[in-house]
Amino acid sequence: MNFKSLYNEQKEIVDKLLTDSLSNRKPSSLYEPASFILSNPGKRLRPVLVLFSAKAAGGSFDKAYNAALSVEMLHNFTLVHDDIMDNADKRRGRPTLHVKYDLSTAILAGDVLLAVAYEYLRRDLNGTAAAVVESFTKGLVEVCEGQSLDKEFEVRRTVSLSEYMMMIQKKTAALSKMCCEMGGLLAGGNDATVTALSNYGNDLGLAFQIQDDILDILADEETLGKPVGGDLIEGKKTFLFLKALEKSSGKVREKLEAVIDNKGINPNQVEEFKNIYFDLGVIDFAEKEVETLTQSAVNSLNTLKESTEKEFLKQLAFAMLKRNN
Amino acid sequence: MNFKSLYNEQKEIVDKLLTDSLSNRKPSSLYEPASFILSNPGKRLRPVLVLFSAKAAGGSFDKAYNAALSVEMLHNFTLVHDDIMDNADKRRGRPTLHVKYDLSTAILAGDVLLAVAYEYLRRDLNGTAAAVVESFTKGLVEVCEGQSLDKEFEVRRTVSLSEYMMMIQKKTAALSKMCCEMGGLLAGGNDATVTALSNYGNDLGLAFQIQDDILDILADEETLGKPVGGDLIEGKKTFLFLKALEKSSGKVREKLEAVIDNKGINPNQVEEFKNIYFDLGVIDFAEKEVETLTQSAVNSLNTLKESTEKEFLKQLAFAMLKRNN
Repeated sequence: MNFKSLYNEQKEIVDKLLTDSLSNRKPSSLYEPASFILSNPGKRLRPVLVLFSAKAAGGSFDKAYNAALSVEMLHNFTLVHDDIMDNADKRRGRPTLHVKYDLSTAILAGDVLLAVAYEYLRRDLNGTAAAVVESFTKGLVEVCEGQSLDKEFEVRRTVSLSEYMMMIQKKTAALSKMCCEMGGLLAGGNDATVTALSNYGNDLGLAFQIQDDILDILADEETLGKPVGGDLIEGKKTFLFLKALEKSSGKVREKLEAVIDNKGINPNQVEEFKNIYFDLGVIDFAEKEVETLTQSAVNSLNTLKESTEKEFLKQLAFAMLKRNN
Repeated sequence: MNFKSLYNEQKEIVDKLLTDSLSNRKPSSLYEPASFILSNPGKRLRPVLVLFSAKAAGGSFDKAYNAALSVEMLHNFTLVHDDIMDNADKRRGRPTLHVKYDLSTAILAGDVLLAVAYEYLRRDLNGTAAAVVESFTKGLVEVCEGQSLDKEFEVRRTVSLSEYMMMIQKKTAALSKMCCEMGGLLAGGNDATVTALSNYGNDLGLAFQIQDDILDILADEETLGKPVGGDLIEGKKTFLFLKALEKSSGKVREKLEAVIDNKGINPNQVEEFKNIYFDLGVIDFAEKEVETLTQSAVNSLNTLKESTEKEFLKQLAFAMLKRNN
C-alpha cells in the first residue's frame, strides 16, 4: 500500500469537487467569498477520514463523496467564524474573509457554507438518514460549544488541564470523530464497526490538537507558515502552557502567571519560554500524550476486518505524529 | 372555530417548549445568550405554520412539535446574524445580542441555534427524513442568499422592483414556504397537498414582507415599537420606495434619488415622503399587492380536504392583512 498516493488521489478528487461545488451559484456576493475559503490549500483530512472510514466499514468511496464535501464545508464554516472571533488577519498566508471582504460577508459566507454542507450531506442519505444527520449535527453542536469554551478560557484566569482536554474534545476531536462515524454509518457498518471508527477519530483529533500546540513552539517559521511561539505571544492557554503552570513553582511559576496577566509575551521572549517548557519536561510530557492517543486511536481499529483502508487509517494516525506543520 | 384561541394555545405550548429547549445545556456562555434571543416576545408564526400545515395535511400536532421548534430556532439564528450585519441595537425593545454581549458571542449563539435546530428537526424525522432535511436546508440556503442580496442592494444604486421581489422571496418567503412544506411532509401528505401548502406559505411570506414595508410608514410608533419611517431614515430600498422611484419623474424623482445619495433622510422629513408615497399611489398599489398575494395564498388551500386547520390557515392569512405591528 502506498499511503501517500492513496491519500493524494482522494485529496485531488475532493479538491476538484469542492471547486465545482459552489460554481454557478448566485448571488456571487455570497458564493464567491465562500469559494475563496473553500479553495484554501488545506489537507482535506476530514473528507479523507469520511471516505476511508466508509470503505473500511465495507462501503465504497462513491457513496460518501457528498458527505465528505459536507464535512469540509462544515470545517470551513468554523474557520471563517473562528477567524472573526479570533481577530485573525491571515490563514495559511491568505487574508481571512472578514479582512478580504467585510464582517457581514464573512458571517454570511460561513452561514451558507454550513447550509450547503447540509445540502450535500442530504445527497448521501439512505436508510441511515436519521443517524447520519444526528452524527453531523452532534459534531456541529459540539464544535460551537468547544469554540465558546475556548473564548471563555481566554478571559478566565485559571483553567485546568482537564478543562482544556474537554474543550479540545469538543472543538477539535468532535469533528474528526464525526467524520469517521459518518463514514461508518453511510457504509452501513454494524454498531461495533461504527464505534471503533468513532473512537479512532476521537483520539486522532485529540492527538492532532496537542501536536498542534507542540508544533507552535518546536516547528520553524517557514514550515509552520506563521511565527514560532505564536500561542505564547498571544497568551493562549495551550496544553503546554497549562501543564507548565501545573508543574512549576517559585520564580518560574511567577513568570508563567505574568503571561496570563500581560495577555501574552514579546516575540523576543519565545526562546526563554521554550527553555522553561523543556526544563519542566512539558514538551516531553505532551509528546508522550500524543503518542499514547495515537496508539489508542490505532488500537480502536483492531476489531475491524483487514482492508487497505483500515491500514490506511493506521498509517494516517502515525503520519499525523510525524507532521511538521 | 376560534382562530385566536387556537393560535394562542399552540403559541403557549411552543413558548414553553422553547424555554425548556436550551435549559441545562453547557457552556452557559453559549446557551444563555441563545436562550435570551429565543425568549423574545415573538409571534411564533413559523412554528404555528408547521403545526397547522401538518394537521391540515392529515397529521397530528404531536408529530411536528420538534420541527416547529427547529424552524423558530432557524428564524432566530437569522435574526441574530442579521442584527449584526444591520448594526441593529434593539429588537422588540430589547438589546440585540452583539450589544448585550459581544460580537463573538452573537455569532456563536446564532451558529448554535442553527445547530440545535437540526438537532430538533432530526427528532421528528420518519420515513420522509431526506425530504424534510432537504426542505429545511433549502430554506436555510435561500435565507442566506436573500440576506446577501439585501446587503448587496444597500450599496447598489439601482434596484428594480422585480429584483426586490426576488430578494424577499428568498429572505422572507422561503422560510414560511419551508414551514408549510415541512408540516405537510411530516404528516405524510401527498404531492398535491405538500405543493398546496408550500404555495400558501410562499405567498403568505411575500404578503407579510410587503405589509411590513407598508406598516413601517403607516403604523404609529407605539404599536410598531420603533420610529415611524425607519426604512426611509435608513435609506432602505423597500417595495414602497422602489415603486415610488418607478412611478416618479421630475422634482419628485430627484427627491427620491437624493435619499439614495444621502443614504437616508432626516426624521423630520418622514411626513413629506409619506405624502409623496400617497400622491404617487404607491401605498395603494402595495396594499392591493398584499391583498392579491393573500388571496392567492388562500386559494392555494382549495385542494385540501376541509378541516379546522385548513380554515385556521385561511384566517391566519387574513389576520396578517389586518395586523398593525
